[in-house]
Amino acid sequence: MKQLKKFGEFNLINYIKNTSAKAKGLLKTGIGDDTAVFAGRPGWVLLATTDMLAEGVHFLTEMPAKKIGEKALLSSVSDIAAMGGKPLYALISVGLRKNLPAGFALDLFAGINKAAGSCGVKIIGGDTVSAKTNIINVVVLGEAKNNKYALRSGAKEKDFILVTGTLGNGAAAFLDKKIYLPNLKISFAARAVEKGLINAMIDISDGLSSEVHHLAKESGLGAFIDLKAVPLGPAVTKTAARAHKQPYELALNGGEDYELLFTVAPAKLGKVLTLAKNSTVKVTVLGVMRNKKHGVKIAGLDGELKALIRKGYDHFA
Amino acid sequence: MKQLKKFGEFNLINYIKNTSAKAKGLLKTGIGDDTAVFAGRPGWVLLATTDMLAEGVHFLTEMPAKKIGEKALLSSVSDIAAMGGKPLYALISVGLRKNLPAGFALDLFAGINKAAGSCGVKIIGGDTVSAKTNIINVVVLGEAKNNKYALRSGAKEKDFILVTGTLGNGAAAFLDKKIYLPNLKISFAARAVEKGLINAMIDISDGLSSEVHHLAKESGLGAFIDLKAVPLGPAVTKTAARAHKQPYELALNGGEDYELLFTVAPAKLGKVLTLAKNSTVKVTVLGVMRNKKHGVKIAGLDGELKALIRKGYDHFA
Repeated sequence: MKQLKKFGEFNLINYIKNTSAKAKGLLKTGIGDDTAVFAGRPGWVLLATTDMLAEGVHFLTEMPAKKIGEKALLSSVSDIAAMGGKPLYALISVGLRKNLPAGFALDLFAGINKAAGSCGVKIIGGDTVSAKTNIINVVVLGEAKNNKYALRSGAKEKDFILVTGTLGNGAAAFLDKKIYLPNLKISFAARAVEKGLINAMIDISDGLSSEVHHLAKESGLGAFIDLKAVPLGPAVTKTAARAHKQPYELALNGGEDYELLFTVAPAKLGKVLTLAKNSTVKVTVLGVMRNKKHGVKIAGLDGELKALIRKGYDHFA
Repeated sequence: MKQLKKFGEFNLINYIKNTSAKAKGLLKTGIGDDTAVFAGRPGWVLLATTDMLAEGVHFLTEMPAKKIGEKALLSSVSDIAAMGGKPLYALISVGLRKNLPAGFALDLFAGINKAAGSCGVKIIGGDTVSAKTNIINVVVLGEAKNNKYALRSGAKEKDFILVTGTLGNGAAAFLDKKIYLPNLKISFAARAVEKGLINAMIDISDGLSSEVHHLAKESGLGAFIDLKAVPLGPAVTKTAARAHKQPYELALNGGEDYELLFTVAPAKLGKVLTLAKNSTVKVTVLGVMRNKKHGVKIAGLDGELKALIRKGYDHFA
């Protein structure tokens, strides 16, 4: 029988997605966006997301446990930020090797608690089991005002495509066997969404190329981005050179930056830039949403237009 | 530095519990009950629980993947049932080995979907990652009417202690390297709680002895149970004999039965027994809650009264 590495992660996700719940009744959004969305307390919807981090894939036990914990919590909170939501609660499950030093487990939770405190998240549930490898699963629940959350599917033709912060940092840190702790833009995103300034949003967990494709596909549109506009993180060029990689390759396909990619109607661009400035959040215009017939394109450093290749990380490849 | 197997699961849980959120504001109950409880849509509270199942600990890949999936979903739904809640949504994270046959993963999700369908649960989110061992994490969200849910801490002195179904089935199946699929009593529990018939409730995941201690401790009481009254599952005696174990040992300390242990005020016992009969749910009176000064005691098969030893499963021992 075919092994998972031949079957592929995307086939498995498609199978799960096809058999999962369709939005109906209390459920506003199921699998397929940054979080699920369902009816909450009066005037609010609840947001729910789950993320698993595995030893050898997302982290190594040689890395500092406290930072692993911080990253685990932040990467799930990032999904709430990508809806324009406010994170509230987390449920943490850990599978840990029996021979792991107890201090590693305590540091891991110290990191989880530190990150949770910085985001206003309360730990309300968990599970601890022994396992043959170390695994952390973080569920974050958040909320947003009714009809005030950003889906991947809301982009409109001619919307500008913007990104927060700088890219390539996650991949560069991983090349150095370090952990990159993202700087989440939770309140900027929540305020921009509440003011109706953002049409569609996604967080950059798999890499810019993959996320641009998600926005285009879910919104039934094409997209154009300009590689020269992509803001590289401070250490990305140097780290890429040491590893004989192209710095823009890390930004496009590296992933784990947890910055926000979002689209804005042309008439609202000024307001978004002002809000970003007042929030001391760096935002950069990368491109524009286009009619589906144009496909998803990128202008390279040489200015030449070509198809944007989607190189999402396939866990089972 | 001390390894986890010397530090112990309960020390780790205590550390997590001590640093986790205290109930306040929208949060009604944090870590320490079957689920967390927080404000939901008007008139309702939301319930959230997370459970991790690891290969080699909770299941073996030689076991049928579909049943592993069913069990994974049901064991989390059981926590919602133990609050008297209605399960609504699940978020599934899986860590899978790359060399795993793709059919295993598909069967696993077929089992998860089957069990979800049988409980009225919708799959609304997930994550799929590669890992060095197979791991499944199931989060279930449910709801209950405001002030109509059963905590572990609600038992009163003189309450009768009852259990649903029969015990020892989970442990007996594991001795046979089989998977026991629990028969959850979701609607009986929800109706009994809504009618105000149940003071405290917990599901039996770690074993009867451990759960009786939980009810007593959280309620600030002692407890007395009669071993002769403990209802054994149909195959438990035979399987125990083959494995040279005492059948009551499997019921007391085996775990994974996912039956409900609950307490009922003497004046309401008749109503509970009638509701159980009308719901075709077997319930058995096992004992009574007592003043804390009496401790937690069990009358053995010989009628002799002794301390009930709590043999919870320590994952890291």
